[in-house]
Amino acid sequence: MAYVDIVTALALLQFIVFGFRVGGARGKYGIKAPATTGNKVFERYFRVQQNTLELLVAFIPGLYLFGHYFNPLWAAAIGLIYLIGREIYAASYVKDPAKRSAGFGLSFLPAVILIAGGLIGAALRLAGH
Amino acid sequence: MAYVDIVTALALLQFIVFGFRVGGARGKYGIKAPATTGNKVFERYFRVQQNTLELLVAFIPGLYLFGHYFNPLWAAAIGLIYLIGREIYAASYVKDPAKRSAGFGLSFLPAVILIAGGLIGAALRLAGH
Amino acid sequence: MAYVDIVTALALLQFIVFGFRVGGARGKYGIKAPATTGNKVFERYFRVQQNTLELLVAFIPGLYLFGHYFNPLWAAAIGLIYLIGREIYAASYVKDPAKRSAGFGLSFLPAVILIAGGLIGAALRLAGH
Repeated sequence: MAYVDIVTALALLQFIVFGFRVGGARGKYGIKAPATTGNKVFERYFRVQQNTLELLVAFIPGLYLFGHYFNPLWAAAIGLIYLIGREIYAASYVKDPAKRSAGFGLSFLPAVILIAGGLIGAALRLAGH
Repeated sequence: MAYVDIVTALALLQFIVFGFRVGGARGKYGIKAPATTGNKVFERYFRVQQNTLELLVAFIPGLYLFGHYFNPLWAAAIGLIYLIGREIYAASYVKDPAKRSAGFGLSFLPAVILIAGGLIGAALRLAGH
Repeated sequence: MAYVDIVTALALLQFIVFGFRVGGARGKYGIKAPATTGNKVFERYFRVQQNTLELLVAFIPGLYLFGHYFNPLWAAAIGLIYLIGREIYAASYVKDPAKRSAGFGLSFLPAVILIAGGLIGAALRLAGH
């Protein structure tokens, strides 16, 4: 599972970087905590981080379920696509929220595949396969 | 732990469905990203998803702790109550936020029981039981 | 890993307490769900909980990665610093958001150390060390 663990750590660090960018946008656009609105570009950075939080919470357990019931290397490979998809999502959302779909799909689909795969794997295991 | 893994995957998929409903409400009520306010019903869908995110983050580790120190089948059974409770919470919150308490309790209590059980189990293990 | 499990359960319960405080502030300052703005002090309680959610999602996997590749006792000790740091963060943020840095650092750095340690540990394992 070391490959899966590395992808997990990278996904966490990516999320932390997204958080730093929110902090940077706070300074740049003069949005003082606890406010999370008031500037359009700041709100994009904030939503990138929040949406990544939502997906990360589903992605990480999915990664381990898929790795456990199928194959850790495949799980890690699908996880790499998630990492790249999230970078594309972040960059395109900040430029223009209307163009966030491609990056969203490229990170959302890997998460769903991992979770669905884990669910199927666990069900097959119970069924005695 | 296959039963616990299945409940985890179902809880993640349920959360993803809540996210789709937020996306649907964005379209229906004309709330364009990055905005998360501006329409009362949209805000309910959004808060259902956000509150589920908050609880899910506590629920999943609790599920595994309880399953590890006590019994995976019991953990999965308590987890099923959480899943049903969240559906009730989501449906009642969207109709009327003031009536969200029953569904909240039915999903919050299972999460707390799992975490508290895991804590007690780990402490007993350390104490040599 | 029982020490790590105990720290995990405590971090989850701490987060749940932060959630209760948000609920209490809802009542005290008359902020009805689904609203999350409208009173400065309420918004501080809310941001404390949200920021803790963001960090918790990174902290818990980091805790297990570090515990797995290095030492569970060290992971738990670093996790204790996180717990104390979050209490300081919560207390200082509610008093004055501008003074949240010390508590933030004292909980953020432990999380980063755990994740970075886990990443290094997994990479060394793959490299055959």
